[in-house]
Order: sequence, then C-alpha cells, then structure tokens
Amino acid sequence: MAAAVALGRDAQGTSAPNPNVGCIVVDADGTIVGRGATAPGGRPHAEALALAEAGTRARGGTLFTTLEPCNHRSPRGPACSALIVEAGLARVVVGIVDPDPRTAGAGLKRLEDAGIAVTTDVCADEARDSMAGWLTRQRLGRPRITLKLALSIDGKIALPSGESKWITGEDARAHVHFERAHHDMILVGRGTLQADTPRLDVRLPGLEERSPRRALLSRGEAVTGWEMLRSPQDVFRLHDVNDLLVEGGSATATAFLAADLVDRILLYRAPIIIGEGRQSVGYIGLDAIGDAHGRWEARDGRSLGIDRLEVYERVRSNQAEG
Amino acid sequence: MAAAVALGRDAQGTSAPNPNVGCIVVDADGTIVGRGATAPGGRPHAEALALAEAGTRARGGTLFTTLEPCNHRSPRGPACSALIVEAGLARVVVGIVDPDPRTAGAGLKRLEDAGIAVTTDVCADEARDSMAGWLTRQRLGRPRITLKLALSIDGKIALPSGESKWITGEDARAHVHFERAHHDMILVGRGTLQADTPRLDVRLPGLEERSPRRALLSRGEAVTGWEMLRSPQDVFRLHDVNDLLVEGGSATATAFLAADLVDRILLYRAPIIIGEGRQSVGYIGLDAIGDAHGRWEARDGRSLGIDRLEVYERVRSNQAEG
Repeated sequence: MAAAVALGRDAQGTSAPNPNVGCIVVDADGTIVGRGATAPGGRPHAEALALAEAGTRARGGTLFTTLEPCNHRSPRGPACSALIVEAGLARVVVGIVDPDPRTAGAGLKRLEDAGIAVTTDVCADEARDSMAGWLTRQRLGRPRITLKLALSIDGKIALPSGESKWITGEDARAHVHFERAHHDMILVGRGTLQADTPRLDVRLPGLEERSPRRALLSRGEAVTGWEMLRSPQDVFRLHDVNDLLVEGGSATATAFLAADLVDRILLYRAPIIIGEGRQSVGYIGLDAIGDAHGRWEARDGRSLGIDRLEVYERVRSNQAEG
Repeated sequence: MAAAVALGRDAQGTSAPNPNVGCIVVDADGTIVGRGATAPGGRPHAEALALAEAGTRARGGTLFTTLEPCNHRSPRGPACSALIVEAGLARVVVGIVDPDPRTAGAGLKRLEDAGIAVTTDVCADEARDSMAGWLTRQRLGRPRITLKLALSIDGKIALPSGESKWITGEDARAHVHFERAHHDMILVGRGTLQADTPRLDVRLPGLEERSPRRALLSRGEAVTGWEMLRSPQDVFRLHDVNDLLVEGGSATATAFLAADLVDRILLYRAPIIIGEGRQSVGYIGLDAIGDAHGRWEARDGRSLGIDRLEVYERVRSNQAEG
C-alpha cells in the first residue's frame, strides 16, 4: 500500500478534478505486475491503468488502491469495480472508502458480491494525506489551500524598499518548484505580479511540463494568461482545482488568513535577520493572544541547505471526518 | 572528558569572572575518585575540588580538565598545576589550553617538567562550547551575549496593544528559566520593565538560588535592584560577567543587533500567527538582503511542547581562534 500511496502522491496537482489515486496489482505469487495513478485530467483511473499493465497476470492476485474503486459507468469508461471483477482478482486492499455518502461502500459491495476478499482502512492516514486536496474539496467545497511564505528569522518578507531577492537559497527555491508541480493552481496578488513578474512555473528536470494554472487575486483588470479571483471566497468557484498554492505577497497572505481559508503553511525560513522591513502578515482579526492558539500544528520540519522548511497545518475539529 | 565538560557546563552562570571549568580525577584502576567544577564566584578551582575529593587515590591516576590548569599562585590558593604535581598524578588530559597568550602552555610545561604525561585538545570543541562565555570575554573583552526572543510564526512579539502573554507554552518558559540559571546577568529595556515588571528569576526546582544579576538598558533614572547600562557598548565594562542574556523587548533587541553585539539567539517559536502586531526587530542598518546572509548559523533546533526552540549563532571569522 505504501507504493500505491507514493504513486498517488506523485499525481497530486495533475489529476483534478478527480482524486490522485495510486494503485498496485500483485499476482498470486506476490510479484508486482501492475502500477497506476490517476492520469492527467482525471482519466483513466489508477485501477484501470494498473489492470491494463497486469493483463491476465492479475487473475487470482491482489489489488491495492488508495481509494475505494468507483462504481459508476461513465461515457469515458467502465466502473473500476467492474474491471476488477472481470480481471479475476482474489483480493482488494483499500486505503479509504469514498467519502461521498452517495457512493461510499457501493464499490466495495460490488466486489464482495463477486466473491472478492476486501480489506479497508489500510494505511488510511497516509492515503488520506496523499489525497488531502481532493478530500478538502469533497468536505469543504473548495481546494486545499497552501500558503507559501519565505521569511527571515524575524518574519520579514522583504526590505522596506521591497527587495526580497533572495531571502532563501537554492535548495529552498528548488523545493518550491517541487511543490508547484504538485498543485493544480498557483495564486499571487497584483502587487507580487507587478513587482516580480513571476513566471510561477516549474523549473525542475523532468517536471517542466507540470507548471500549474496561474491565478491573480485582484479586483482590477484581467491579465492575459491569468485566471482572476476577485476575493479569497472565489475559491469556492474553483470546482476543478484540488490543490491551490498561494504564493504571496503580504496582502494576499493576509486576505486568505483573515478569511480562514488557509489549510497548510509551507514556510521557508532563512537564517537571516532583516529588522525593519515588510511584514509577512497584516491584520487578520486577532484581538487576543489566546485566540491565536490551537489553530496551527507543526507537522514537518527539515533542513533545506542553510534554510529550514516548517510545515504547519490548520487544526479543524472536523478534520478527522475526511 | 565528556563528564568533565558536563560538570563545567553546569557551572556556567556562576563561576564568573573565572571560567566554568569541569574536572574529573580517575585512579590508576580507572575508577572516578574526584569531581569538581569552578565554585560560585570563581574559587576554588575545579581541579582543586576534584583533587580534594580524590585525596591519596589520585596518586598514579589521570586528571581530566576542560581547561589548562592555572600556573599562578594567588592569595586565594596555590596554582592548580602545583596541586597536580603534589598529588602525584601520572597523566593529565586537557580540553583546551589557556587562550591568554601570557599564560598559555605554562601550566602544561610545569606538569611535563614534573614527568607527568600531558595530552591536549581532547574534546576541544565541546570544551570550548562549554566555556563560550568566558572565552568570548577573553577574546572580545565583553560577555557572550545571548538574545532571547519568543515569537509567533510570523515573527511578532505582541499584539498592537502590547499583549504578549502568553505566546509560548510552559515547556518553553521552563527552558527560559534553565537558560537564566546559566547566565550571570539578565538585561531588559525600560519598556519591558514598565510593561511586565519582570522578576527575571529562576523558577526551577533546585535552581532557585541561581537567579542572575539584573540589568536595565536605559538612559533614564536608575532603578533599585537593577544595574544600569546606558548603551549596548557598556557591555565592555562588565568585567565580571561571562554570559549575558538579553531578554527584550524589541527596542533592546534592535539596539544590540544594530551594534552587532549579539553572539547567539535563543528563539522560542510558537505555532501561532499574530498578523498585525509588534515586530521583534526594528532597523538594524541593513540596506540589502545580500548583506544579511552569512551572519547567522542555525546550531540547534528542538521541540519544547508545541513550541520549537531555534538556536542561531553569529558567524565571526575569528571564532575558530577562541
């Protein structure tokens, strides 16, 4: 299942509007004979790809998939549960069941009715984490929103003049490009667009083709090549985006934080002190220190060259339901 | 030697104006028979205490000390090198030689002249680190200065109203008390004194007696119970302070950073976002981002409850000479 999760994770940022599922097929002897991840644009599904690779070697084998196989026939192909029955699998191991109450369990029931042994909730936390964007969209009706910040020790994003190149080093910047490749859309504010004219593309060997769609948070005129969001609330109109990366600047970060529309913070911390400079976040409606606590949890931390990556996730009481 | 370093480290903050040396005496069979660390106020020396505990069991044994034994007779007692010769040690293992060029090597020569085998530079980095305050004073003529900051993710120290209780949690605050116990003097600015009326004492079981001297950075009237520094440059007058802890607030931190009089930053980072609020550091004379790089190095990082401790040290080209 860990291999299936890894396959699925790699498809994050390309599978929308569908979930980035990963799938592995093992034959009766335990040899991996098929691998799949949701294809760009959402079709074919991971299971269909893995079964196609496995062919007749799937018969009597086991299929591992991070999400319950679909049970609906669409114009674009048959239901994965039907493909699995047809391929003669003996066993299916599932990360998480479909969170949509209209379909949850129907795919599994079809497999069981065909005499296939079904196990669920295997590596469920990892599977859930790998599809966090799509799951957020199912639960909240909007993409998972990640805020990227590149800050000094003292939390500044630039000198008073606006100079911000470069706060972080090459390793941190390469990691940003890796994260971009795993998001469907990147958003900046007009200030960042005008000051930096950012390309916001992915400049990593082998991932150049994965540059996400670009969006601009602005009430002003549209800009060619950029999708427009007039307010953070417009994220609820992004029905084909699982993962949205908000790259700045301060006004944009503040707007999303004030609207409580940030699920995850990717903070690249450089070992420098700027002192007087531009702050990373402005007024977000906080009136007491006590109210600031319990909202964020440090989930990861690691060195990237001389810089450090800090990952925080928004603690939401209904998160466990995902 | 690791045990000697640990003994010496524990005396940091109490041994000034003398170095916080640690010493272990092992008998001819390898059994530890004496332990010592520089006593509060600087006398007796670590070697004298360890030899006193060992008594005649020192004969033929080995003495481990983090710093070259002194070679000068003082009104307060004989030279440690003389005590070692008298005790009949067979071998002496030394962390670092005395950095003072007037005495460096003289203590060791006396031992060698008496037929004792001498080894130096054993765990030299650890020994140097354990006496960083005293070594800074030898090299730069002032205490080692540690700046303590308690910051939010976005680098704020308080709300616009000044409310700052509490940004960090209990574990982080306990660690501050531990650090206080290992500093000779704590300094705050008048703003912090008036806003918080801080006790700046040590509230940890067993360490209550180790509350350091208190100093105030202010050009204004003296305050009973507080030593006065009228500017950061006054640290060069603190001849009996090895380790100085600067606890805030923002104006004080800025003054010390602008004067390049901070050697180490203890940063307690809470997983909260404050947004609009008081910044941790103001104008420190920085005019280009490039000039901010290469000055600080992350030396340690660890979790303290939900908070995180980040330790940075000032990179000085002559540091290796210490």
